[in-house]
Amino acid sequence: MITRADCEALDRADPLRRFRDRFELPLGVIYLDGNSLGAMPKSARTAMNAVMEQWSRDLISSWNIHSWIDIHERVGMKIGKLIGAGEGETIAGDSSSVNLFKVLAAALALRPGRKTILSERENFPTDLYIAEGLMKQLGQGHRLKLVAPDEIAGAVDDDTAVVMLTHVNYRTGRMFDLNRVTGAAQAKGALMLWDLAHSAGAVPIDLTQANADFAIGCGYKFLNGGPGAPAFLTVAKRHIPHIQPALSGWFGHAAPFAFEQSYRPADGIVKMAVGTPPVLSFAALDAAVDLILEASIDAVRAKSLKQADIFAALMAQELKGHGFSLASPADPAQRGSQLCFDHEHGWPIMRALIARGVIGDYRAPNILRFGFTPLYLGFTELYDAIVILRDIMESCAWDKPEHHARARVT
Amino acid sequence: MITRADCEALDRADPLRRFRDRFELPLGVIYLDGNSLGAMPKSARTAMNAVMEQWSRDLISSWNIHSWIDIHERVGMKIGKLIGAGEGETIAGDSSSVNLFKVLAAALALRPGRKTILSERENFPTDLYIAEGLMKQLGQGHRLKLVAPDEIAGAVDDDTAVVMLTHVNYRTGRMFDLNRVTGAAQAKGALMLWDLAHSAGAVPIDLTQANADFAIGCGYKFLNGGPGAPAFLTVAKRHIPHIQPALSGWFGHAAPFAFEQSYRPADGIVKMAVGTPPVLSFAALDAAVDLILEASIDAVRAKSLKQADIFAALMAQELKGHGFSLASPADPAQRGSQLCFDHEHGWPIMRALIARGVIGDYRAPNILRFGFTPLYLGFTELYDAIVILRDIMESCAWDKPEHHARARVT
Repeated sequence: MITRADCEALDRADPLRRFRDRFELPLGVIYLDGNSLGAMPKSARTAMNAVMEQWSRDLISSWNIHSWIDIHERVGMKIGKLIGAGEGETIAGDSSSVNLFKVLAAALALRPGRKTILSERENFPTDLYIAEGLMKQLGQGHRLKLVAPDEIAGAVDDDTAVVMLTHVNYRTGRMFDLNRVTGAAQAKGALMLWDLAHSAGAVPIDLTQANADFAIGCGYKFLNGGPGAPAFLTVAKRHIPHIQPALSGWFGHAAPFAFEQSYRPADGIVKMAVGTPPVLSFAALDAAVDLILEASIDAVRAKSLKQADIFAALMAQELKGHGFSLASPADPAQRGSQLCFDHEHGWPIMRALIARGVIGDYRAPNILRFGFTPLYLGFTELYDAIVILRDIMESCAWDKPEHHARARVT
Repeated sequence: MITRADCEALDRADPLRRFRDRFELPLGVIYLDGNSLGAMPKSARTAMNAVMEQWSRDLISSWNIHSWIDIHERVGMKIGKLIGAGEGETIAGDSSSVNLFKVLAAALALRPGRKTILSERENFPTDLYIAEGLMKQLGQGHRLKLVAPDEIAGAVDDDTAVVMLTHVNYRTGRMFDLNRVTGAAQAKGALMLWDLAHSAGAVPIDLTQANADFAIGCGYKFLNGGPGAPAFLTVAKRHIPHIQPALSGWFGHAAPFAFEQSYRPADGIVKMAVGTPPVLSFAALDAAVDLILEASIDAVRAKSLKQADIFAALMAQELKGHGFSLASPADPAQRGSQLCFDHEHGWPIMRALIARGVIGDYRAPNILRFGFTPLYLGFTELYDAIVILRDIMESCAWDKPEHHARARVT
């Protein structure tokens, strides 16, 4: 039996507890959706004020005196540390979708004889859409082969150019074994491309140890970089000299300010940059990534595992018989930093939770998704969220159709 | 003979003078580089504070309650008004380079039998680089044909798929005749793609009247959207149903939050969106564009022409015999909102000007570039800039090689 006092004790003993004050959070809200949009670090506001000051005061000269000119490289290096990329393998900028286009195009060009992109059916849709668009544009007969997660390793064959997977599934939180799947792909000569959207900043990742070929990821989820923050991409050093950017813009040129007439790619990962970096958005992301580095990703993961453990135990203790079933893997080692539950009335239940200040989210058909963000979420909040959920379940008749209709329009 | 008192009188009579207070500008600086990075509107700071507040307080729900979800469409519509695009033809987001890739790919796909992209040698390099990268990726035998600006109309032929030009040249300020060149391209069956980086927010543009097919442009120059601000793209309505986005991301999907497995493009211009819009950067751009709409682009152009006229007259009056020659067209109707001068010692002269608080910029080999931004630049400042330049020229020996060496390292 877990009590509220137990959760308070966990909070008191929590080595990350001091980080909560480093975020601006609304009162009366229990935020379990940092996996969709991370909360705002106070340092992001400070950084934004500073960059607005630079812009207004130092104008064009800021590109040099405040080193705006390579902010995408600096922030990329920091993110690289969080995901175990080698030095000079990661650059930030653009959106995840655009970055996926860039690295997928590079990967296909490295395997010209192979025509299959292998992914899973439940991959985040934009990844599949980007692959579709690229294949259509190339017109070289590529195909996208989609299988169930467990079938991936067995589905790699001699025609597989690249295995493209999201490390942690956006709906269920199921996490692939980075090393094993990368090894299975490469054993058949395929390249491995990881989308780290739901894992960067949430779980320790070692791309170098896994020997991954490419990765991309998102800045606004567990990295807390702000809405639509710049994304990132990683290319293993062994491939960098051999790839030609499809999106060959001036910021990827060897000498952007020489204004040469022909494209000449930069030597390192910077060749994957395209246009002028969005400095304002970068200011927030830069500060946010610093905070995770300061806390350490291992400490974040340790607390996240404990939070998921407590949350699952409280669900079992307080909500037994209310029709929830775990939609995430039971094994914590196979999950990212979220827990999902199936419920036939998932949608109105989530609406009711949100109305009571418990912010999770809903993904069709029936999934209630709760994200754990150890830097700013406490154990007592988890307890309180469960009590509110129990209260909702005990006081509402979810099988009345008019309730659904009402909930859907709010 | 133009006196300082004359310039003061022009400032007093200037209908746009009140807009200067709407910008945050440093003291003691005469800013003639708004063509490279526009100054900061005070409303951009307010908007940024507001969006940071939304992020911290309303978190994920901000996407709906603060309409972040379609900010790229709303800002695109506003920019569309500035450039005479039809309703629903413009969307903001990504960088100019990425947007050029998108529309150039779409244009080439509309002219499958034609293999030439026609542009000018002195086009802004990233445009040429992006074309190179796209052609290489397509592998369909396209070629980039570069000619002098005056040769464009005559160089369009039956193989020309698209004429891709920057409306106002970044170095010289020379402005193409939008209607005439578009007509010449289309007369031979080619599509016309305009890069409005140095003209949007500076000169009135009527893409509809010109019957242009595609356009792109930059948010951080004359639009004052902040460093690396989101860019924009325009597609003529007649083409929208017939183009397939190469960068087919979830924000261009007909139903992004249905999480369908296959890409299904949205009906309108929104199909050209790709990833999640960078809301923080958009906040500043949105406020900045509002300011230009409030002032009216016609008033901006009228003052810009007057400023260039005064500046050129003062150069002639005060700097005769100092070796400056106009590198911009003499006819004001053929110029954007800048004046450029050639000088054999251009680089150290610009360094000396900047050291004295007159911020212009330098473009190799010998060009001193002065941009006019009527919303925040006064006539008296132009006078003072010229006096400082005269003072520099009279007090320095520009032909001493050691001066060059010294200037280059500062």
